[in-house]
Amino acid sequence: MDIINYIENVGQRAKQAAQLLASTETAQKNRALIAIADSLLAEAAMIIAANKKDLQAGREKGLDDAMLDRLTLNQQGIELMAEGLNQVASLADPIGSITDLDNRPSGIQVGRMRVPLGVIGIIYESRPNVTADAAALCLKSGNAAILRGGSEAIHSNTAVAHCIQQGLESAGLSRDCIQVIETTDRAAVKALLHSKNYVDVIIPRGGKGLIKHVTEESEVPVIKHLDGICHVYIDDQADLEKAVKVAVNAKTHRYGVCNAMETLLVAASVATEFLPQVAASFQQEQVELRGCERTQKILPHCIAATEADWGEEYLAPILSIKVVDDMAMAITHINHYGSHHTDTIMSQDYSKIRQFFRQVDSSSVMANTSTRFADGFEYGLGAEIGISTDKLHARGPVGLEGLTSQKYIVLGEGHTRQ
Amino acid sequence: MDIINYIENVGQRAKQAAQLLASTETAQKNRALIAIADSLLAEAAMIIAANKKDLQAGREKGLDDAMLDRLTLNQQGIELMAEGLNQVASLADPIGSITDLDNRPSGIQVGRMRVPLGVIGIIYESRPNVTADAAALCLKSGNAAILRGGSEAIHSNTAVAHCIQQGLESAGLSRDCIQVIETTDRAAVKALLHSKNYVDVIIPRGGKGLIKHVTEESEVPVIKHLDGICHVYIDDQADLEKAVKVAVNAKTHRYGVCNAMETLLVAASVATEFLPQVAASFQQEQVELRGCERTQKILPHCIAATEADWGEEYLAPILSIKVVDDMAMAITHINHYGSHHTDTIMSQDYSKIRQFFRQVDSSSVMANTSTRFADGFEYGLGAEIGISTDKLHARGPVGLEGLTSQKYIVLGEGHTRQ
Repeated sequence: MDIINYIENVGQRAKQAAQLLASTETAQKNRALIAIADSLLAEAAMIIAANKKDLQAGREKGLDDAMLDRLTLNQQGIELMAEGLNQVASLADPIGSITDLDNRPSGIQVGRMRVPLGVIGIIYESRPNVTADAAALCLKSGNAAILRGGSEAIHSNTAVAHCIQQGLESAGLSRDCIQVIETTDRAAVKALLHSKNYVDVIIPRGGKGLIKHVTEESEVPVIKHLDGICHVYIDDQADLEKAVKVAVNAKTHRYGVCNAMETLLVAASVATEFLPQVAASFQQEQVELRGCERTQKILPHCIAATEADWGEEYLAPILSIKVVDDMAMAITHINHYGSHHTDTIMSQDYSKIRQFFRQVDSSSVMANTSTRFADGFEYGLGAEIGISTDKLHARGPVGLEGLTSQKYIVLGEGHTRQ
Repeated sequence: MDIINYIENVGQRAKQAAQLLASTETAQKNRALIAIADSLLAEAAMIIAANKKDLQAGREKGLDDAMLDRLTLNQQGIELMAEGLNQVASLADPIGSITDLDNRPSGIQVGRMRVPLGVIGIIYESRPNVTADAAALCLKSGNAAILRGGSEAIHSNTAVAHCIQQGLESAGLSRDCIQVIETTDRAAVKALLHSKNYVDVIIPRGGKGLIKHVTEESEVPVIKHLDGICHVYIDDQADLEKAVKVAVNAKTHRYGVCNAMETLLVAASVATEFLPQVAASFQQEQVELRGCERTQKILPHCIAATEADWGEEYLAPILSIKVVDDMAMAITHINHYGSHHTDTIMSQDYSKIRQFFRQVDSSSVMANTSTRFADGFEYGLGAEIGISTDKLHARGPVGLEGLTSQKYIVLGEGHTRQ
């Protein structure tokens, strides 16, 4: 009961802060962002000490090396956080911009004004840098934020929160603009997911388990992607030299990321030429290959893929490969097994690329490009708070604009409707 | 159980049809719209006969005159439906349009392509013309539609559905593009609201009871507005002649509509001059006035407003009036008691209008204009499927664009991420 009251109180204060933030001037928001960056740098020793407590507790709890790595904040990590805040300060402020102010036959003038969503709840796991990154994007886009990090990073997040509060205050903004939940009680997450009177959208950041839980439990709308099952389709009209380069990059540039390729689709008529070339590169990188029957005929050392492989996000040096009759079969496979994240066609054929773009139902559809480019920075959004594979509101990488909405504004001179 | 299977089957077929519709050419969609219009006109006698069955059943069930009126379809009503379809055919097709195809430093080119949402479920009450109107907007925007009208209009809706099917077929499109649920079993609505694997968005059209029920029950995202509690604020810098005209129009132009004014807010320093003028006009129109204490001092015949009045959508010749100290108090009142629909300031003061626009958290914010203009046609959207007071995705009147989303498209020449 205490937790429910606590979260309700946090929500009320966030909602009030959001009302002020919606019309706060750009310069003041930027001053706060820069002040938070300065505070993070000034308090680096304090943050590192807090992080050491989390790391020690993590080791005692038996967290694996990958998790401890994600949890670690060193001097360089703090400098990166500060740099991120300064970068967000330098981005254009989307709020208040008015577009399409057109005259209508009735005499009124109608346009749209970009406005914040209101209160954004971010629920995330181990990486403490999300605290600063998410705070920056919410603040710049005029939204109040409620941040709930993982229990394993509680000391680090509390330390970062302290710097955020200092920065807000020194710029004359309310501390309620960005609140960090400083309890590890899981009831707080549940209460947050049911705060539909105070919270306008929830953004989960973390593993599949977290995102699935948040999506199922939340009464508040959620912006999320659950899986990143990305495909590269090698068309019979592909430039095979480029195709090898792109396929290898899409798989091996980084393994544990949502925009890495998980399944390679190859048109039958080029499979005999293409597959041995690309397999040689994957062998060098020690990527395990799991192929369909037709793939195995060309690559005899390849493991047999099962039905489950086509729907699997490996996040590891593993790749499934399927030979398809043609592009239509590739598109059907992608729309059926994919996760609507990012899919690429390698082809020099103009009409096929146009068709692939229309028919593949994913948040990013690419031609002759590595799936690894699906990213807010690479797309020029300046920063990203996540990637959405949903269709309503935001789709693809979500930057500042994805944290806003547009309302209509109407100007008249005493106009009445006849 | 039968109903659940039936709706699942409808959903599956809609999803398949949506995949084809997403890349159907504009000309073919237009041919279907025009063919549906022609079919409605050709089958007018059949539709009117079906409608007579509904009207008779309605009279036997004791529906009131207003409901019977909404249910009635005559020759003129059918001609209006056909005209609506032809108008939607003449609108620009939003699907496939590509914007902002910019070059990035990495060498890739990134843009956004407008795409359909997928499958749209429309749940509506008595008015059978919604069947044709909603079908037209969904089809033009490349979405498959599942339409569920009220049981009191079942014969009319089935007759209109027959014309829709004829039109789709004669244009070579699948009948599954627009499916009308032809059972009056309420379990069908429930099943539809839980079809999150097949339906991308639900749009309820009807009274507050229906919308509340749909919102609470639905697992599928909903685009809706629940209330239309619209305000006109008369500032102390208002042109009082215009203010009287706009206030009277906003209240009396039509009573039963969501964009009618329900509460009039008046700055104290002009209340003594303004209120008697506007009250005289309202008296002529037989509008009942319910005022705060300060209003009653100026208009002694005015009934006392209670706390409940400020949150009431009358949809009737009743108006609540409150005298406020200043604009800040008006904005606080609007954001607290309003429904985020449409609110107007009457003022000649530049800075105040800018402030009102930033601080009033409504889907339409107006200056010196009647709230009655909040409408898809008046805004130039060509048509509207409803008005959204939500913040995510669509806000304000929802036209073709509101039924679409944008995905990212990326063009390269074998680019890889370094």
